Amino acid sequence: MLVAHYAGNRTMTVGRAEPNPPGFGQVQIAVAFNGICGTDLHILSGHMDARVAMPAIIGHEMSGTISALGEGVDGWAVGDPVTVMPLAWDGTCPACLAGNRHICQNLDFVGIDSPGALQGRWNVDAGLLVALPPSLSLRHAALVEPTAVAVHDVHRSELEPGQKAVVIGGGPIGLLIAAVSRSCGGDVVVIELDPGRRQRIADLGYTVLDPRDDTVGWVEEWTGGAGADVVFEVSGAAAAVLGAVDYAKVRGTLVVVAIHPEPRPVNLQRIFWRELRLLGARVYQREDFETAVALLEAGEIPADALITETVPLAEIQSAFDTLTAGAAMKILIDVQSGQETA
Amino acid sequence: MLVAHYAGNRTMTVGRAEPNPPGFGQVQIAVAFNGICGTDLHILSGHMDARVAMPAIIGHEMSGTISALGEGVDGWAVGDPVTVMPLAWDGTCPACLAGNRHICQNLDFVGIDSPGALQGRWNVDAGLLVALPPSLSLRHAALVEPTAVAVHDVHRSELEPGQKAVVIGGGPIGLLIAAVSRSCGGDVVVIELDPGRRQRIADLGYTVLDPRDDTVGWVEEWTGGAGADVVFEVSGAAAAVLGAVDYAKVRGTLVVVAIHPEPRPVNLQRIFWRELRLLGARVYQREDFETAVALLEAGEIPADALITETVPLAEIQSAFDTLTAGAAMKILIDVQSGQETA
Ligand SMILES: [Zn+2]
Ligand SMILES: [Zn+2]
Repeated sequence: MLVAHYAGNRTMTVGRAEPNPPGFGQVQIAVAFNGICGTDLHILSGHMDARVAMPAIIGHEMSGTISALGEGVDGWAVGDPVTVMPLAWDGTCPACLAGNRHICQNLDFVGIDSPGALQGRWNVDAGLLVALPPSLSLRHAALVEPTAVAVHDVHRSELEPGQKAVVIGGGPIGLLIAAVSRSCGGDVVVIELDPGRRQRIADLGYTVLDPRDDTVGWVEEWTGGAGADVVFEVSGAAAAVLGAVDYAKVRGTLVVVAIHPEPRPVNLQRIFWRELRLLGARVYQREDFETAVALLEAGEIPADALITETVPLAEIQSAFDTLTAGAAMKILIDVQSGQETA
Repeated sequence: MLVAHYAGNRTMTVGRAEPNPPGFGQVQIAVAFNGICGTDLHILSGHMDARVAMPAIIGHEMSGTISALGEGVDGWAVGDPVTVMPLAWDGTCPACLAGNRHICQNLDFVGIDSPGALQGRWNVDAGLLVALPPSLSLRHAALVEPTAVAVHDVHRSELEPGQKAVVIGGGPIGLLIAAVSRSCGGDVVVIELDPGRRQRIADLGYTVLDPRDDTVGWVEEWTGGAGADVVFEVSGAAAAVLGAVDYAKVRGTLVVVAIHPEPRPVNLQRIFWRELRLLGARVYQREDFETAVALLEAGEIPADALITETVPLAEIQSAFDTLTAGAAMKILIDVQSGQETA
């Protein structure tokens, strides 16, 4: 089978390997599609070399079908369409014991801390499987994982029907958060710097603002002087963090979705003055995954608008280069393409 | 009567004035004691000159007895011991309409935005009165307002019985938060730089740490590797903000109590990683005031340890100077002292 590796030095290599049979309690998946996300780009940039054991098989936004069952696996059959919730927790740390297994203090994120989906046959513990409905295409199903991130962010914000949300950053996760917020009955505005992304989001029927305009004044007017109920910081930009508090109503909620590798200046005076609530939100819980599957199946997620292109596994380096250049929303890797001849 | 004024230029002056009769819906209070707080020091420093109309009668932590009733006042009698919840809201802004009148978008904080308690006879709207029980001394009752701040902070944190809280900063509000947390069944540690304050807090039976020691390791061990349920940032120091997140458990809560006039670097990566919650908490609601009265009456608040000294109104400048030098916890002004001869 063909396997992609992160080999360090900003390089993805593609090679051949013999598939292993699934172990006890595992299934083997014929991976259909694998989306590339910001974390994968972060790995390619070398920033996570201390965490990733090279050469590393990465990839965690995937869809596929079960190709073999290991011993001790019940309830699954060869041919079942599936995705994987890529979290393996220890079950014993204080976070797990308190019911927060998804952010276990010793979490193994599959595809970063252990081998991921960028391989023709992938063995995973059956407990990580999430069933896919037959009516959901495997291409769209590769968006279940990032959609689950957005579902988790919106659930964490406690956005209620009729409430107003500001999404700062119109990349794939920002757009997914906007779509999930709308599916929850929220009224959404997206703030995005890039004119191409603004156009694409506007074409989907969302209100989009340029951050260089008077966005605070716009939100003030939009909300009748109250401020937004929820603000999602998805851009990762320091200036966005500093300004995010100015959109929020008294007792409003800010959700930190983006990765901020360095401490950022935060306007604590405004947080104090308006009794704001700032929440961290990371990954997802199983119910978020199941909601994501349902939203994709119901057509509530603009999947086709999100998927800029689909690229065969052999050309994975070019996909990473395109994404690093900021020239695409989401690129899917067609993992089975070329496997027959390998 | 004697009246103290903030006259600008780091100066408090004391002069004479004729008391006015209470207006419609007002009562006149013979102010007994008035505590000086951090905000008052902030006013004296000149940092709030844009907000305070000089010469300004400040003061908002007070106790007294009703000396006269205006027309239209029901349910109160001359001689009743009272304190004042010094918040006047407009009742019409989005925050008020959403039930958050205590942080009205146009809040008038009595004693800052309108005349306060540092005068022999003070007229206030009867709606701001809070009744005091006869068994509570007027000296201790001057601590109701700062105790209500602490009650509000602890309620906002949702600290539950048996949970563990870290209080960063052992000044008056930090000590009050520690006392209120303990009264709610919480387990508390206080982190304080000043050795004199550390000693005083330890003498009250609290565990106190020096921030230069390995406080993160201590909290880790104290909490069995989980981290604290709640962290109160009361110090106002930039370094404390940066380090506060390291004490908190997965899904733990940080409450920003201190004033941070400038944006502070915040470790958003840790907030994201552990799904922390950071809350602003400002002033109080009426139930916080009533709880504060009850806690003081029940002896749950170390009132005598908090009150470093009591100073006659004529010597108010020296009280401000002592507090500015950091040489006291709480100083009360005896507002009636000297009034007879004025
Ligand atoms: Zn765990
Ligand atoms: Zn209001």
